[in-house]
Amino acid sequence: MSEDKKITMAHGGGGELTNKLIKDIIVSRLSNNYLKSLTDSAVLGKIDGRICFTTDSYVVRPLEFPGGDIGQLAVCGTVNDLAVMGAKPIALSLALIIEEGFSIDRLARIIDSIAAAAKLADVKIATGDTKVVENTKGEGLFINTAGVGAIDESINIAPSAISDTDVIIVTGNIADHGLAVMCSREGLSLQTQLKSDVAPLNGLIKDMLDTGAKIRFMRDATRAGVAGVLADINEYTSLGIVIEESRIPITVAARHAAELLGLDPMIVANEGKCIVVVNKNDAQKVVDACRRHPLGANAAIIGTVTSAINNIELHTKIGGRRLIYRPYGEQLPRIC
Amino acid sequence: MSEDKKITMAHGGGGELTNKLIKDIIVSRLSNNYLKSLTDSAVLGKIDGRICFTTDSYVVRPLEFPGGDIGQLAVCGTVNDLAVMGAKPIALSLALIIEEGFSIDRLARIIDSIAAAAKLADVKIATGDTKVVENTKGEGLFINTAGVGAIDESINIAPSAISDTDVIIVTGNIADHGLAVMCSREGLSLQTQLKSDVAPLNGLIKDMLDTGAKIRFMRDATRAGVAGVLADINEYTSLGIVIEESRIPITVAARHAAELLGLDPMIVANEGKCIVVVNKNDAQKVVDACRRHPLGANAAIIGTVTSAINNIELHTKIGGRRLIYRPYGEQLPRIC
Repeated sequence: MSEDKKITMAHGGGGELTNKLIKDIIVSRLSNNYLKSLTDSAVLGKIDGRICFTTDSYVVRPLEFPGGDIGQLAVCGTVNDLAVMGAKPIALSLALIIEEGFSIDRLARIIDSIAAAAKLADVKIATGDTKVVENTKGEGLFINTAGVGAIDESINIAPSAISDTDVIIVTGNIADHGLAVMCSREGLSLQTQLKSDVAPLNGLIKDMLDTGAKIRFMRDATRAGVAGVLADINEYTSLGIVIEESRIPITVAARHAAELLGLDPMIVANEGKCIVVVNKNDAQKVVDACRRHPLGANAAIIGTVTSAINNIELHTKIGGRRLIYRPYGEQLPRIC
Repeated sequence: MSEDKKITMAHGGGGELTNKLIKDIIVSRLSNNYLKSLTDSAVLGKIDGRICFTTDSYVVRPLEFPGGDIGQLAVCGTVNDLAVMGAKPIALSLALIIEEGFSIDRLARIIDSIAAAAKLADVKIATGDTKVVENTKGEGLFINTAGVGAIDESINIAPSAISDTDVIIVTGNIADHGLAVMCSREGLSLQTQLKSDVAPLNGLIKDMLDTGAKIRFMRDATRAGVAGVLADINEYTSLGIVIEESRIPITVAARHAAELLGLDPMIVANEGKCIVVVNKNDAQKVVDACRRHPLGANAAIIGTVTSAINNIELHTKIGGRRLIYRPYGEQLPRIC
């Protein structure tokens, strides 16, 4: 199949053309023993530990942005949703909904990116599906990945484990993904180009868990950003949170971009950062482990869980206080 | 949240509105212990047997059709992909991509349908995701489900187990799903209304497996229909197949509809039928087990695997012979 061609409705018909597309363009790039069988389901074999299962669809625009693309995002986002549960990611599914007229070259490039991200995250694309829909105003490709992982017996990470005086850590500079996508979409050119932080966090998280620290809860700060995760913690536990603005790691470039776009960096999506809630006695140990990992170099303690209040307070750099809320509706459509 | 409202981009922002949509409209209808936690992944716990993993996106038009809707399809299709591997379905993920402007009432109705189908199939919706995209020409909703199941130690179903003289069974009348959707789409009104056969096959398949018959391979005959499955078998095994047209179960209404639409029923999608390849000595036992189950009442032996030829031959009712191929491209766009 020549790769400078376009996707047609016939590629989604389930016939010979679908077969060729799947074999020549997709499976050839992701090759592994699970996929080779081309059966209705992948047989992953026996798995020890508690099975963990998650899904996400990716509808980001543009499909390619500084620092990454929808394919890399679709692998990392789902790997991270497993990793923050304390699970080792084992296998992903890959479901493509492609608009007719989409370039097969471009599709091949995105599949290459998926293959590279899966290799980096040490996870297999075990099963998949391809559908074609009529051309619309959209950019032409939606990706869904689901993920299966296994949680070791010794791990107990859950919002119910969070308690008063626990410490809140962020594993690095915030807001890069959302701002990079927004700048790219708005054609905003900055002196220092922002890049998405999209990355698989399972390696970093393993290093944190391996310290033996009493990690209570982790969540990657994607849609709705750090503020969204803090709001989740507040909602699950009914405990308050105090955040020190001066401790939040963020680059000057990201701060400027957020100001230009009129966005609060706390609600902007990250795709390679997670919030960690940990017993205060273990907090420094976790930060140190992060900083030894390339993806956690700017990790920092940013706040504390407290029963003294019941909302989320930000202590600002200039000595003021304001409340942090989950954003209400749409501030950043189709950011992931 | 009032249910006569429309979906807005803000429902996909990951903020308060997304939260309310997920809790009030979706989780409330699917309630189970996995979903209640609202964590990044569902923890399914320890699972015995070999883990089986599959995914499918559903893009059918219209979203509601005689005999079913996209929600029912999204549950049954993925349950069936697990069941034909000999797996007991355990959990499904549910990922919605909704167009802005979609009726929340209609969404609720489709989620009700998902809940009912999941109950019928005895499978839990364990995890999910919701995204919103701009309004386009489309009908407004794509659904992806992935599924996790477990295969018992004793089961060995794989194309490699197929051998010469094995018998081919279809579990009931063919072509109803595709023809019902096409008639509905074309506004074709027939004397006897066709209904989709969409149904979860795990119960029927369990009954077949429980006979102890030497079942080699099973596949549900969806996109590309019975012809597609036969082509797969031919391709996997390099063995030929002979099919007796007179033995293929099909209703008079379906045959007429296929003629009117100019379609070969052999390539039309089914959503509640599977092809079973079984040792010839056990074939009647399997057909009998099917016929005792409401979803297998019209099961029939339709042909034989043979090393005497290397393609797929249909012996027609009038004594002729023709070859069966996998359809090439699009004959039935967006049928599932």
